[in-house]
Amino acid sequence: MSAHKALIAPLAPGGTVGILGGGQLGRMLAMAAARLGLKSHIYSDTADAPAFEVAGAHSHAAYDDEAALAGFAAACDVVTFEFENVPSATAEFLARHVPVNPGPHALSICQDRLAEKSFVASLGLKTPVFASVDRATDVDDALARVGVPSVLKTCRMGYDGKGQAKIGSAADIAAALERFKGAPAILESFIDFAFEASVIAARGSDGSFAAFDPPENAHENHILKRSTVPSRLTRAQEDEAKTIARRIGDALSYVGVFAVELFVTRDGALIVNEIAPRVHNSGHWTMEACVIGQFEQHIRAVAGWPLGDGARHADAVMENLIGAEAEDWLALATRGGALHLYGKDAVRAGRKMGHITWLTPKRRD
Amino acid sequence: MSAHKALIAPLAPGGTVGILGGGQLGRMLAMAAARLGLKSHIYSDTADAPAFEVAGAHSHAAYDDEAALAGFAAACDVVTFEFENVPSATAEFLARHVPVNPGPHALSICQDRLAEKSFVASLGLKTPVFASVDRATDVDDALARVGVPSVLKTCRMGYDGKGQAKIGSAADIAAALERFKGAPAILESFIDFAFEASVIAARGSDGSFAAFDPPENAHENHILKRSTVPSRLTRAQEDEAKTIARRIGDALSYVGVFAVELFVTRDGALIVNEIAPRVHNSGHWTMEACVIGQFEQHIRAVAGWPLGDGARHADAVMENLIGAEAEDWLALATRGGALHLYGKDAVRAGRKMGHITWLTPKRRD
Repeated sequence: MSAHKALIAPLAPGGTVGILGGGQLGRMLAMAAARLGLKSHIYSDTADAPAFEVAGAHSHAAYDDEAALAGFAAACDVVTFEFENVPSATAEFLARHVPVNPGPHALSICQDRLAEKSFVASLGLKTPVFASVDRATDVDDALARVGVPSVLKTCRMGYDGKGQAKIGSAADIAAALERFKGAPAILESFIDFAFEASVIAARGSDGSFAAFDPPENAHENHILKRSTVPSRLTRAQEDEAKTIARRIGDALSYVGVFAVELFVTRDGALIVNEIAPRVHNSGHWTMEACVIGQFEQHIRAVAGWPLGDGARHADAVMENLIGAEAEDWLALATRGGALHLYGKDAVRAGRKMGHITWLTPKRRD
Repeated sequence: MSAHKALIAPLAPGGTVGILGGGQLGRMLAMAAARLGLKSHIYSDTADAPAFEVAGAHSHAAYDDEAALAGFAAACDVVTFEFENVPSATAEFLARHVPVNPGPHALSICQDRLAEKSFVASLGLKTPVFASVDRATDVDDALARVGVPSVLKTCRMGYDGKGQAKIGSAADIAAALERFKGAPAILESFIDFAFEASVIAARGSDGSFAAFDPPENAHENHILKRSTVPSRLTRAQEDEAKTIARRIGDALSYVGVFAVELFVTRDGALIVNEIAPRVHNSGHWTMEACVIGQFEQHIRAVAGWPLGDGARHADAVMENLIGAEAEDWLALATRGGALHLYGKDAVRAGRKMGHITWLTPKRRD
């Protein structure tokens, strides 16, 4: 942490924001930077990454290529990430050369479900009951603490339902650990939620905070399908969700946009499912429904600019276009919403290819 | 015209839109193309053109470099323009190699104030009284037809008040022609307007038409300073403005976005001042106040996609940041609007450096 350079002064237009990762989030971040007169430099290990198309400079190299990382750091005034699974060595290497926002400490906590849940619980916030599980664990003991049904998740690298297994018995845990090839895992109590919500928030380098109205999120096959604002949260729950995000952001000394995914139980409790230390799919609607959306908000935060207020001027529904759904782009273009296609060359099942956001006048203030 | 290839089928995502010109309009067009999953290739004779930063490919070459133009044409599926003063030889050369929208015919009419005014008058639309003036003209005859006060304008290459002179006498015309170095000019009656408005419209390759609500425009030092929607136009005048635009677009077989600048007289008449065959500064507010703004609308039209409806979901005020006004970017970033900075390196007096758009709830439907 001591090696982490903070960005002192706001980055003047013409300065360069480095973005690690070249997918759709990097692409939308680069365009938000451009709107503010900032340049962007994308670093990705993927040839023809979608974000390369909208950035003035890019590096195509492995995430452990220190020569390429050093060149990237030298070309950038500040570096940020489009994804949380940046190797910690990469984040720490960059942080020795250039200001990195969010810092490696926040990334390292959010990369590991066990560290993340422990951190959230340590703030007194609600989480599922959880226990660490690996091949050396007394499975009966973990099951006794967490109960069934529960969910076993790999601690690292899981997303969109990958590295997860439903658990009803000790035998299920053994089978899942086998499938996880012995990777450390976390057993979490299954939350019988009424619905899922998320809060997308930003914290500035000066500790300022802004949160968008929390959307309600619907998943299909473990992949986000639809985000809707306003959600079914009451005003009091919305305020509670934003307060949860603020406590997390402050405790991480976080700089940038992050999302807190929440389970909303039938009795109205907000239970923290996970933290995403980056712009988030459930915040894409903010591009159209807010004057300053999540991508610009993140760029503002990491570049040391004042945050925008994130006020929402319309109700919105965002739908992801997954896999083959984007192939019918011509019909989608007639559906009246704001269509975003990510420029990915190959359609694959479960791959996020684009999204559409529809706005309607605000139902409540 | 017969050499002008039309684009037959809608351009699929992954296709490349070529944009001649690398300023802020090209930059915002390239980002709109990216949102739809299209690539862009910018062609500019300026090194470090602002649009290069957000495009996957660019050509830096002179507008009469046929080898570079041929390479550009070969790299693009369709070509469009960010400015109307493309040399006609360039437009015609490109049109022999690649579909060009809008076509060279529309460009050539809009490049020449005399051809443009004659065309508009031929449609039965109102224009100022005008007469062709050059060194061979009987100036007294022209003055007798047009009257004073009037305005002498070079027929070609004028913008932001450049190449214009107020005329009160025959001597003024002689002096202005001297200053114009004998360039052909048009004498136009001075319209004592109540205010200025514009209509930004799009025409698709299938003849479809969509117009944004007409903004009211305020100029300072002949440069657009502020556009406001809704304007002071009545609903009937708004409809008339859109009808004027539709007649012009149809008569030009126009494909793309264009603007018609209007003088609104004290007795309510709409007089066509000029046509801009491109996206227009007075339409920048559409990016935030409409789900599909003028830049995406233009890309949709030139790429053969269905037009969006252009409906406005908010009232808006757009202010240009001219010259040194953009230097105070940090204060501007706190003013709550959508801030756009164009990434221009050098601040010059009168140079458009950025703009801000503020949204407010719609006052009327």
